[in-house]
Amino acid sequence: MFIPQEIIAQKRDGDELSAEAIQFFVDGLVDGSFEDYQASALLMAIFLNGMSPVETAKLTEAMMRSGRTVELPEIQRPKVDKHSTGGVGDKVSLILAPLAAACGLCVPMMSGRGLGHTGGTLDKLESIPGFSVMLSDVAYRAQLASIHQAMIGQSRDIVPADRILYALRDVTGTVESIPLICASILSKKMAEGIDALVLDVKCGRGAFMKTEAEGRELASHLIRISEAMGKRTSAIITRMDEPLGYAVGNSLEVIESIVCLKGEGPEDLMKVTFELCAEMLRLGGLVESASEGRAMIEEAIRSGRALAAFKELILAQGGDAGVIEDARLLPQAEIMHPVAYEASEAAYLVDLDAYEVGQVASFLGAGRTRADAAIDPAVGLRLRKKVGDRVRPGEVLCEMHLNDPSLLNAALQRLKASFTFSSENTPQPDIVIDKLLGK
Amino acid sequence: MFIPQEIIAQKRDGDELSAEAIQFFVDGLVDGSFEDYQASALLMAIFLNGMSPVETAKLTEAMMRSGRTVELPEIQRPKVDKHSTGGVGDKVSLILAPLAAACGLCVPMMSGRGLGHTGGTLDKLESIPGFSVMLSDVAYRAQLASIHQAMIGQSRDIVPADRILYALRDVTGTVESIPLICASILSKKMAEGIDALVLDVKCGRGAFMKTEAEGRELASHLIRISEAMGKRTSAIITRMDEPLGYAVGNSLEVIESIVCLKGEGPEDLMKVTFELCAEMLRLGGLVESASEGRAMIEEAIRSGRALAAFKELILAQGGDAGVIEDARLLPQAEIMHPVAYEASEAAYLVDLDAYEVGQVASFLGAGRTRADAAIDPAVGLRLRKKVGDRVRPGEVLCEMHLNDPSLLNAALQRLKASFTFSSENTPQPDIVIDKLLGK
Repeated sequence: MFIPQEIIAQKRDGDELSAEAIQFFVDGLVDGSFEDYQASALLMAIFLNGMSPVETAKLTEAMMRSGRTVELPEIQRPKVDKHSTGGVGDKVSLILAPLAAACGLCVPMMSGRGLGHTGGTLDKLESIPGFSVMLSDVAYRAQLASIHQAMIGQSRDIVPADRILYALRDVTGTVESIPLICASILSKKMAEGIDALVLDVKCGRGAFMKTEAEGRELASHLIRISEAMGKRTSAIITRMDEPLGYAVGNSLEVIESIVCLKGEGPEDLMKVTFELCAEMLRLGGLVESASEGRAMIEEAIRSGRALAAFKELILAQGGDAGVIEDARLLPQAEIMHPVAYEASEAAYLVDLDAYEVGQVASFLGAGRTRADAAIDPAVGLRLRKKVGDRVRPGEVLCEMHLNDPSLLNAALQRLKASFTFSSENTPQPDIVIDKLLGK
Repeated sequence: MFIPQEIIAQKRDGDELSAEAIQFFVDGLVDGSFEDYQASALLMAIFLNGMSPVETAKLTEAMMRSGRTVELPEIQRPKVDKHSTGGVGDKVSLILAPLAAACGLCVPMMSGRGLGHTGGTLDKLESIPGFSVMLSDVAYRAQLASIHQAMIGQSRDIVPADRILYALRDVTGTVESIPLICASILSKKMAEGIDALVLDVKCGRGAFMKTEAEGRELASHLIRISEAMGKRTSAIITRMDEPLGYAVGNSLEVIESIVCLKGEGPEDLMKVTFELCAEMLRLGGLVESASEGRAMIEEAIRSGRALAAFKELILAQGGDAGVIEDARLLPQAEIMHPVAYEASEAAYLVDLDAYEVGQVASFLGAGRTRADAAIDPAVGLRLRKKVGDRVRPGEVLCEMHLNDPSLLNAALQRLKASFTFSSENTPQPDIVIDKLLGK
């Protein structure tokens, strides 16, 4: 028999919690016997005193079992998903799901909405007119059986403990805890019925993990817990100092995703997407090596099968597939304001703060500061220069897309401060920092 | 402008909170804008990362100002109070208030109820038939003006922030934090309108501070904060390994207090009481030295004035003063069960675990495990031997006073295990460990 304050005191004193204590905590969260003020005290003790890999795995498992879990025995293809820890301009999922499906995988992807300076996959998809991210379980499984991909939100009966914990962490300063992040991410992914998982662990100013060391630590924890739960798992550690690609904002990112599926996307975005997709193919057993995977990916793009798969996805989920040929069918902002380089000499763009760019986009209405806030799918930013580019006086650095003109000046001021120029260029480090590959 | 999660994150990261942030927290506790689940996360962060003396003083002051504070300008005598951090058999307040009043001080004492293994002054006083611990503000001040002492509970409008915080700490494993203990004790004492304060900081198994080092740390923090708030302050650090005196239980402790006021009390209890009283007299400016104070105290006892003052107190608060001459007017338990020394050889009692004795008394009904539970004033334990005493086979070690015979066996078993005997005696350390004397 447990009482909440004894469990709290154990973690407060740095002791390891037993599997039974963790189960009692998670059960109590859902049935209300562990009060929210007790849960938040325990979350802070976990934040400050940590959790061992064994404890984290037990927490993940107890959370996963707090609700319904999906099994997909009828699917013959390897079922592989990707999860990103979140960044600015990160539209990789929109490209990756159809691309991996076109290569022969099944991608049962459940995603979240954006909060703070990062966007969410569901918000981006919903900027496509008619696109529905809430499918019945029957429709979801039928779609996976027919087109081998689905991109949906998580229904309320999947991992209810995470919904409670996440809401509490958000308002109690306990978000950035590696064991809590691991348990939150993996409890949801493990409930999807996948065979393997590839993680995009982002680090840098625009990510939740600010340093490479933190990113590596999170990646190794995620792999360890996920493998302990029986899933083949790899992590690609990628840089998130400037936005990924050129577009930040929901409609704008859908447009850029389509460009990528046509093989014409920005180099950094294409590289991260291809690395993740190749590793998904390898873990799914469709290829022996990443280079073999890359060849398969390039063929799927070149042949038009990847783009066709995206069209299938849009149609299956009720969206207007015309957006693929005509971007004007997506919501468009009323005002486009170009931001020019105001200096007398040409220079190099040597730094662009992804966090600030994300905040400006959010301020324009592309993101939300509260979980229940509405977003504006049309607004955002489209970069015209990336770090390392040379810029001449008067050249456009970035387009601001907005609907509320009263926001322009404040957004402009903050946006301009996020660019740094220099007369000398600095070499750009590879966007892929490291790959931690599972078996 | 503050938001709760930013304040939580600051303390989580080990930063010092500003006076404004602390004020926002305390105001928010009372007006509900700082949710209880946010408060408990902050309490855990304070527990684990501490608070500087400046922060603790600001917290104390903000808590004190969360409600009504008492000023007593009409009282000419020095107003001095005592606070004990709590122990088993600690009935010092009942002796000290009339004794100090008989020596010329005014003692405006607001006390609490017992919880866990320690008893509360209010519970003890209420075992006197008719005694009321809730006085109106007018009656309270009139009593202080006429008999220079009052022993009452705290009305709800005094330090409301402490009531909220204490309830939360109790259920979230955040009780034993020095800054939180300091702020809780001192916010209430500072609201009483006193000039000076003497602290009885107990350490040992029967106290909240288990080690001498913890006791010293708490004492020095308490003095520092209290002096920073303009009160002359001293602390006496005393041992709490065995119960103080012989009686543990409400009626039983009132009887022992009366014995002390007649000058016939147990040595340890008399010593602690006299030390505290002498220091109150010195801080109040009535004597120059502790030895001068001791002479004044002995005269107050010998002359009967101290006992007469207790009678005045009982009468003023509606109690039956007949208990002073006839202990049978106090609630008496139906069953008295003597616990004998069961061995074939005489030995020395070398150890008696105060915590266990307190738990047994509480189990018999003398204390409460929940704040809203009722207590039985009649039950408890009366020791017949103290540590260091020689005991012969068959001699009575302790009397159990109980009303529910079904509790006897379990209580007996636990009680017996709290005694340790040896053929050789060990020297007893002084009950007063140290005195930290203010100016």
